Amino acid sequence: MTSFGESHGRGIGGIIDGCPAGIELDVELIQKDLSRRKPGQSKITTQRKEADQVEFLSGVFEGKTQGTPIAFVIWNEDQHPQDYNNLKDVFRPSHADYTYMKKYGTRDHRGGGRSSARETIARVVAGAIAKQILATPGVSIQAYVSQVGEIKLDKSYTELDLSKTEDNIVRCPDDETAQKMIDRIQVALKDRDTVGGVITCVIKGVPAGWGEPVFNKLHADLGFAMLGINAVKGFEYGSGFEGTKLSGSQHNDVFVLTDSGVRTKTNHSGGIQGGISNGEDIYFNVAFKPIATLLKEQDTVDKDNKEVVIKPKGRHDPCVLPRAVPIVEAMAALVLADHFLLSKLNTA
Amino acid sequence: MTSFGESHGRGIGGIIDGCPAGIELDVELIQKDLSRRKPGQSKITTQRKEADQVEFLSGVFEGKTQGTPIAFVIWNEDQHPQDYNNLKDVFRPSHADYTYMKKYGTRDHRGGGRSSARETIARVVAGAIAKQILATPGVSIQAYVSQVGEIKLDKSYTELDLSKTEDNIVRCPDDETAQKMIDRIQVALKDRDTVGGVITCVIKGVPAGWGEPVFNKLHADLGFAMLGINAVKGFEYGSGFEGTKLSGSQHNDVFVLTDSGVRTKTNHSGGIQGGISNGEDIYFNVAFKPIATLLKEQDTVDKDNKEVVIKPKGRHDPCVLPRAVPIVEAMAALVLADHFLLSKLNTA
Amino acid sequence: MTSFGESHGRGIGGIIDGCPAGIELDVELIQKDLSRRKPGQSKITTQRKEADQVEFLSGVFEGKTQGTPIAFVIWNEDQHPQDYNNLKDVFRPSHADYTYMKKYGTRDHRGGGRSSARETIARVVAGAIAKQILATPGVSIQAYVSQVGEIKLDKSYTELDLSKTEDNIVRCPDDETAQKMIDRIQVALKDRDTVGGVITCVIKGVPAGWGEPVFNKLHADLGFAMLGINAVKGFEYGSGFEGTKLSGSQHNDVFVLTDSGVRTKTNHSGGIQGGISNGEDIYFNVAFKPIATLLKEQDTVDKDNKEVVIKPKGRHDPCVLPRAVPIVEAMAALVLADHFLLSKLNTA
Amino acid sequence: MTSFGESHGRGIGGIIDGCPAGIELDVELIQKDLSRRKPGQSKITTQRKEADQVEFLSGVFEGKTQGTPIAFVIWNEDQHPQDYNNLKDVFRPSHADYTYMKKYGTRDHRGGGRSSARETIARVVAGAIAKQILATPGVSIQAYVSQVGEIKLDKSYTELDLSKTEDNIVRCPDDETAQKMIDRIQVALKDRDTVGGVITCVIKGVPAGWGEPVFNKLHADLGFAMLGINAVKGFEYGSGFEGTKLSGSQHNDVFVLTDSGVRTKTNHSGGIQGGISNGEDIYFNVAFKPIATLLKEQDTVDKDNKEVVIKPKGRHDPCVLPRAVPIVEAMAALVLADHFLLSKLNTA
Repeated sequence: MTSFGESHGRGIGGIIDGCPAGIELDVELIQKDLSRRKPGQSKITTQRKEADQVEFLSGVFEGKTQGTPIAFVIWNEDQHPQDYNNLKDVFRPSHADYTYMKKYGTRDHRGGGRSSARETIARVVAGAIAKQILATPGVSIQAYVSQVGEIKLDKSYTELDLSKTEDNIVRCPDDETAQKMIDRIQVALKDRDTVGGVITCVIKGVPAGWGEPVFNKLHADLGFAMLGINAVKGFEYGSGFEGTKLSGSQHNDVFVLTDSGVRTKTNHSGGIQGGISNGEDIYFNVAFKPIATLLKEQDTVDKDNKEVVIKPKGRHDPCVLPRAVPIVEAMAALVLADHFLLSKLNTA
Repeated sequence: MTSFGESHGRGIGGIIDGCPAGIELDVELIQKDLSRRKPGQSKITTQRKEADQVEFLSGVFEGKTQGTPIAFVIWNEDQHPQDYNNLKDVFRPSHADYTYMKKYGTRDHRGGGRSSARETIARVVAGAIAKQILATPGVSIQAYVSQVGEIKLDKSYTELDLSKTEDNIVRCPDDETAQKMIDRIQVALKDRDTVGGVITCVIKGVPAGWGEPVFNKLHADLGFAMLGINAVKGFEYGSGFEGTKLSGSQHNDVFVLTDSGVRTKTNHSGGIQGGISNGEDIYFNVAFKPIATLLKEQDTVDKDNKEVVIKPKGRHDPCVLPRAVPIVEAMAALVLADHFLLSKLNTA
Repeated sequence: MTSFGESHGRGIGGIIDGCPAGIELDVELIQKDLSRRKPGQSKITTQRKEADQVEFLSGVFEGKTQGTPIAFVIWNEDQHPQDYNNLKDVFRPSHADYTYMKKYGTRDHRGGGRSSARETIARVVAGAIAKQILATPGVSIQAYVSQVGEIKLDKSYTELDLSKTEDNIVRCPDDETAQKMIDRIQVALKDRDTVGGVITCVIKGVPAGWGEPVFNKLHADLGFAMLGINAVKGFEYGSGFEGTKLSGSQHNDVFVLTDSGVRTKTNHSGGIQGGISNGEDIYFNVAFKPIATLLKEQDTVDKDNKEVVIKPKGRHDPCVLPRAVPIVEAMAALVLADHFLLSKLNTA
Repeated sequence: MTSFGESHGRGIGGIIDGCPAGIELDVELIQKDLSRRKPGQSKITTQRKEADQVEFLSGVFEGKTQGTPIAFVIWNEDQHPQDYNNLKDVFRPSHADYTYMKKYGTRDHRGGGRSSARETIARVVAGAIAKQILATPGVSIQAYVSQVGEIKLDKSYTELDLSKTEDNIVRCPDDETAQKMIDRIQVALKDRDTVGGVITCVIKGVPAGWGEPVFNKLHADLGFAMLGINAVKGFEYGSGFEGTKLSGSQHNDVFVLTDSGVRTKTNHSGGIQGGISNGEDIYFNVAFKPIATLLKEQDTVDKDNKEVVIKPKGRHDPCVLPRAVPIVEAMAALVLADHFLLSKLNTA
């Protein structure tokens, strides 16, 4: 998958190469994931309005994939590039303004240009198609918000009913915690500030044998995909950072025989051993920093090395987490669809 | 870089493609990093003995790289494959035995075969060469052990003298914490158990402008590289998982003018913004699970779906952390050398 | 460079990744190459009309490349998909109808779908941008038609004034031969038949040192690029197939000292030795088969294994050569721009 | 596949990544192809002696491939690097001495170093393994010498008994022509000169549906692979350069129904249409220039820009063609094995 597009350019799109032929694309499912990512979906997201309708330019004929490149675009509509005129020459703190200028010697200052999180819209489209590829082997992916600021959902995914994730606007399947998270985001909103958090993702139905050691271990590809999402600062799978405190005898997942064959008693491995899926659930956490765009004054410098004070205008998210849930799922789907296809090459 | 080799085969090696020509290779420096990774180096590592001498097969002529593929091999010597005869048909818990068999329908059972951490020796060689490439732009990389089990070094790298890292056998630059860590590993040793931990890595001297958004963000490539190391369960850079609890106004790194040009007041970004280096120090944490090989009895199943009890023989590490320090550095060096070269293509 | 699009879909386009930042794009030059490839340009090409105007969707801001992906599209306009209704279920001889169906189990039958030569329009756009990158090192590329059917231009490029290539509609820089070629194509047109030929391409200004042995030899990349163009059946560079008849003492290019440094006396090597440019002119020939679409009756079979007779309708080229000249140049430019960038990595 | 090694270094080898697991490797078959490429095999090849025994370093366990990287090496033995001392500072005409120096600023002068045709030995090993992968789908590959200097075999492969190829030392399946070719090479030998020629390769048993348009067309990958072989100057498949003279109605391969399903009446397409195999035989020609190493005096320049006369010593081939037959087959096998594996991904 390749993507293109800037926040305030003509649109955002991409090309998917190598999608198998003959898949009946359910465009409504794609659009549904786009709506989960869409701005303006609730009181705790940015109020910017975008239709975010995907248009397919190629690779789909009479509703079916053709095995040829699938190009698509989501046209930009509700653009207020003038909101950014005052930022043309200044480097916003913790944005990519400074580094893009240093790398390329030029930059599109309108809304972050290429570095805008709006680019992830292309990933959601591609991921929604990948989910449809994964329907064949029976893989399902569900992400949810497990932390907002210091509000942390202290239950494992096994104790939750993940089907309730979409029941509230913050996308946390535990109602009580969800409400606390929403309150926390509204505090940020009132403060003209932002707040970070963690998304947990659970993947069920992956058979044993997916993953390509030693360099393209399944979790390494998942981590790479997650770290490519805007604002992500960390990735851990299975027992993660907490598991480092255990001893080996506590941490090891003992194999047992069950009615459904060989299974592990515990799942600290997070469904992956030696970089290859073992048939258990895959689960991982993704850390998101608080968004850098604040609607309050901040000190910074401009391109002429002058110290200035900025105050961004525009419509911004106080917390990226609720809208990032479908993005995490999409990136996971892309990685898994690749490994599903690669697993066909395990033996001759 | 491509690697080959199994734990108990002929040897471990690799090919480095795309190394620039004309670099005077300091083989002693390479050998020094190999010795930091070598088994048998202290009382808290496995007592297996390997010479771990690298032999170059190509690409180096009269001491200089030729721009052509550099092939190298480290021959295996102190092999006791018979130590593994009793493991031929059983799946060790939390190893890759089961998943390799499921993926490939066959496996080399001797010491984990390809999935053995001995494969990382090739990465150390390649990384030591990458470090020499990075000497030109003045980049230095220093990793150290910051946590063993529940023993955590509660100081930021900025409060430490990293040059003291090699002063003790656990490779923690804080003497007092180092001693606690050594004690903790010796407890594991006595218990015939193992213990996990965290390695922190600090990279200085990277200029602004390295990194390839949107897919090959510098931190995404670093995370991918770290997650490819055996036993790694998590990666975070800059403020990481802890940073998710901050508000944006606390987290943002404000730009300031200094004698050395534009700098940031804080460095929650970990030296990377929008996937591109900003000239500040890059730092990240890598989580290692406790090693799965215990010298105590464990339940498991064998390939005929029979429940069995195993007790591995052989010589094993109670804690992988001290020996993993040069591996983390090596993988970081490989990523940075790539981005150093790629940065030459930023502009025409 | 990635491309997308079908002959009779929404449009044809592509994404160029890795184009350096800061290049002032001259869109008129791009449009000029598109016009050289455009249908309906003369009496010896198809009379189909397409505006073939390129629209840039991303990567260009205020006229300059941004280092970010450049996406572009040429919308399809003059479509008569109904011309293909009678071909929906039959396999046209020597087209890709049969093989696409065998590979993908489905196909877009309208005008060849993805296999249509209209796809090359994306290559012309990308190549025109690559030419602008190559202006910095001073590389120029000129292709011309050197054979149509049995009419062969029996002069080496060194005996020709290549600037006269665009002076006639067949794009052969020798007026007399050009007229014979035009006559030959008009015979094919009258016969409702087609005719093949050869394009020669000459590249000047490549310094010594471009090319990546042993797998990405400069001529191997050029050959790969040419063989990817529709209807191409062969590639030879320097002395090519004829040179196989010489003895080594006749064929070797002796080095001599000249005012402009080390040069070769002859240039059977075609400017490339050991896969690396040597500073002399690069030249090669590309063989094009006669186009498979004839406006006369032909026997074939349909998808139900029934023998049928077909007679394509629509507007088709009697000879692809004149319109393929900018395509050959474009693919050469893409290869050379890549190697120009790669050559920056020869040494540290 | 990646290769390493220089003509007069420690050895030549490579790593094969992505070979499916569970293939019983027949090492004798590999060794047999190596012997067909081996120096000193007949009176018309170089008299240099090399054992050319392959040693596997990894990826094969108990005779079977493991799905893990297969590393191998052929140690160099009969080295006379002193034969090249007089060439240390001079650029041999039509060799890669000059271009390597220009690209890398350094070079291994011993026998051409990395640019030596001895590198192809790694390709023969990898190709012999690829042939064993291709046994599953029933693909067979046979190359033969079809031209030496001006001596040309004027029969199509369909008129020949290809099983007779190995019956003579020049590897031409037509006895009478073979003798003329041998005589021609002996003239070159006597003259201390060299001679070029053409190898034809025929591939049977490829089912319809292999090939990856639009960039990795099957013939484009074959051409790329062939052009990567030392001394190759041209590639054509199917009707090739001669076919450009035909009209479309002569050239088109009409589909017919036969007992074995849909076939084409003629095969000008060379078994590939639109970059995808159509089930017919694949055949192509590869042009080899006369080898540049002559045992007679030649003018040239040295690295100090001084004009000098050189006369190579050592043991050299008068004609590369007979020994190149297994190399052409090997490269074809590598391409086809890749496309065999990729064809598993055509549909979900």
